[in-house]
Amino acid sequence: MPAFGFRVRVTDGAARLGECQTAHGVVQTPAFVPVGTQGAVKAIRHRDLEEAGAEIVLANTYHLLLRPGDELIARRGGLHRFIGWARPILTDSGGFQVFSLAQRVLITEEGADFRSHLDGSRYLLTPERATDIQARLGADIAMVLDQCLAFPASREAAAVSTARSARWGQRCRRRLAELRSRPVAGVAVSNREQAQFGIIQGGVYQDLRDESADATVAIGFEGYAIGGLSVGEPSDRMYAVAGDTARRLPADRPRYLMGAGTPEDLVECVARGIDMFDCVLPTRNARNGQLFTSEGRVNIKSARYAEDDAPLDPRCGCYTCRHHSRAYLRHLYVAGEMTAGALNTLHNLSFYLDTMRRIRDAIAFRTFDRFRQEFLRSASSLSLDS
Amino acid sequence: MPAFGFRVRVTDGAARLGECQTAHGVVQTPAFVPVGTQGAVKAIRHRDLEEAGAEIVLANTYHLLLRPGDELIARRGGLHRFIGWARPILTDSGGFQVFSLAQRVLITEEGADFRSHLDGSRYLLTPERATDIQARLGADIAMVLDQCLAFPASREAAAVSTARSARWGQRCRRRLAELRSRPVAGVAVSNREQAQFGIIQGGVYQDLRDESADATVAIGFEGYAIGGLSVGEPSDRMYAVAGDTARRLPADRPRYLMGAGTPEDLVECVARGIDMFDCVLPTRNARNGQLFTSEGRVNIKSARYAEDDAPLDPRCGCYTCRHHSRAYLRHLYVAGEMTAGALNTLHNLSFYLDTMRRIRDAIAFRTFDRFRQEFLRSASSLSLDS
Repeated sequence: MPAFGFRVRVTDGAARLGECQTAHGVVQTPAFVPVGTQGAVKAIRHRDLEEAGAEIVLANTYHLLLRPGDELIARRGGLHRFIGWARPILTDSGGFQVFSLAQRVLITEEGADFRSHLDGSRYLLTPERATDIQARLGADIAMVLDQCLAFPASREAAAVSTARSARWGQRCRRRLAELRSRPVAGVAVSNREQAQFGIIQGGVYQDLRDESADATVAIGFEGYAIGGLSVGEPSDRMYAVAGDTARRLPADRPRYLMGAGTPEDLVECVARGIDMFDCVLPTRNARNGQLFTSEGRVNIKSARYAEDDAPLDPRCGCYTCRHHSRAYLRHLYVAGEMTAGALNTLHNLSFYLDTMRRIRDAIAFRTFDRFRQEFLRSASSLSLDS
Repeated sequence: MPAFGFRVRVTDGAARLGECQTAHGVVQTPAFVPVGTQGAVKAIRHRDLEEAGAEIVLANTYHLLLRPGDELIARRGGLHRFIGWARPILTDSGGFQVFSLAQRVLITEEGADFRSHLDGSRYLLTPERATDIQARLGADIAMVLDQCLAFPASREAAAVSTARSARWGQRCRRRLAELRSRPVAGVAVSNREQAQFGIIQGGVYQDLRDESADATVAIGFEGYAIGGLSVGEPSDRMYAVAGDTARRLPADRPRYLMGAGTPEDLVECVARGIDMFDCVLPTRNARNGQLFTSEGRVNIKSARYAEDDAPLDPRCGCYTCRHHSRAYLRHLYVAGEMTAGALNTLHNLSFYLDTMRRIRDAIAFRTFDRFRQEFLRSASSLSLDS
């Protein structure tokens, strides 16, 4: 068994305070995982990410497979060395981007045949190859290849894709066992202590979710992810499915809700037993001038901030809020300065990571329910611009 | 007389080691002034700039006049407060950008009538207005409005524009004296200790340069700039004009060569008595993947760096060189990541500012000539890619 480990330290209702041990250090949970698609969180540097409090970063296998290539990264000694980030890394399987970005995608039982959105070159991503690629990248947490489903999907479509995802998960697990047990020609394993998480599918159909959870847990993984949510379904539906699925998962393994979400989503899903989240929302919105603050959401390009000398968020201690006014941030955004993207990203990530810290503190003191009520009552979810 | 002061501490041949005292602190000379066009050095944050060793930054009056406007900045308490930079700032007069960026420019003795390249709105920039605008911005060093000249220009054209620049310089000086002596309705002065530099014109005609220098010195400014060089003339011509002009200027005032240049230009012009430089080269080239290193120039997108695990410049101590390999920098550049712009800018500015530090050390030890010979013999000016 690899050095990966997970320990729940405190529970408060369904909420769990824990820690994930990896070969590159500990991740305190509940954790938010910033998205560094191509091996870099857009607009900022690793140091900024660390200062904001990030303990782990996600990189996208699809993007890295296409450019610069998993074999090149393996020759550099793996992703940590290549990108110069010494802390934990999580990689997805590449499946989601194949479905959302790639061209001429053909899915069979074997895997996904597709062409690169960059240059049209052809790839075949099978469960085995997704496992091999991630072994070369050497992240601390790798994900199985699953078949993604759009929302809304019929029960029939969901059932077919969920069953296939289970078979693919089994093949990924088998391949990883092979890579762990003996050298495999052509597969340089960059991180011998890589953990692998299974993914629960099933759309918004709880009986399919239950089946998928049981099948995935039967295979046995270091952790379990809930996939196929936060894809357009109503929030309360997402919360219900996440909660009901989390309850069915083993208590001693981390639970990761993929692709979520808003600050409210994080709080609501922690309340339902989720330990990890990743989402492009804070970083992508930042680059578009959409900022999260303790007083509400701010669209920084609004003329109302042109002469506003206050910090973006008076309760925030990030570099941006310590050094700059809303008036300056608006100027940089309107003037198209790259620095706007950097300063805004730094703030939004700080807001998310600070929210996770507050969540962990509340669980530690077993006051999470009060925190949650106050957080949802607070202005955080309101727009300051309207 | 304002608190602005300049002191030459050591001379070594024509090279001078000095310091410029301003209301926002000291600038050691010879100094390189990074360009922060719209109130931000593109792609990086103020803190990065400070860490690279920048003691002063340049902001462009033309850009700030158009957006967000000099009056808005005055209401924020001036440029230092607005952009959150507590160290010295230099602003140009706006003239150069009017000639290079604005639309439908009409120059008369009164000033420059033009339309914004952003929205076509009309402005009249006179010497008095250029002075007022810079008073509102409140930089530590303001520049007079001069009439720029393209290269090559006939002697006749150069003579006309040089004579006009002298008259404009006189009007700028008179206006500043007015602003210093009494409150002027509609002009909020953001920095009572602002210095004003005159600008010597004359193209590549040394007799015109001499006339311009004498006329400008006769008006009397806190410092003197040499304008209209580094616009396409051969390097040796630029060095000769800069040197001959510098010699004609008072020894107790700073000499600023506007818009130059390459690392070699800096060394050659320090050797001829120049104290200050500004140039977009390190920052613009960085964003285009053109990097300066102690081993030569690097075009980071070249395929030869795809698997190069060495730092960009093994002799450089900047964040980029301490943390990342050429392979990663190439990946970020090729993948179009904004972070590439940030990391490359940080490195190029560090290279420039470090070169200035080495220049100052060499003058302090009176070994500047040896430094200069070695610098020019070294690989710095060669391309590593060819």
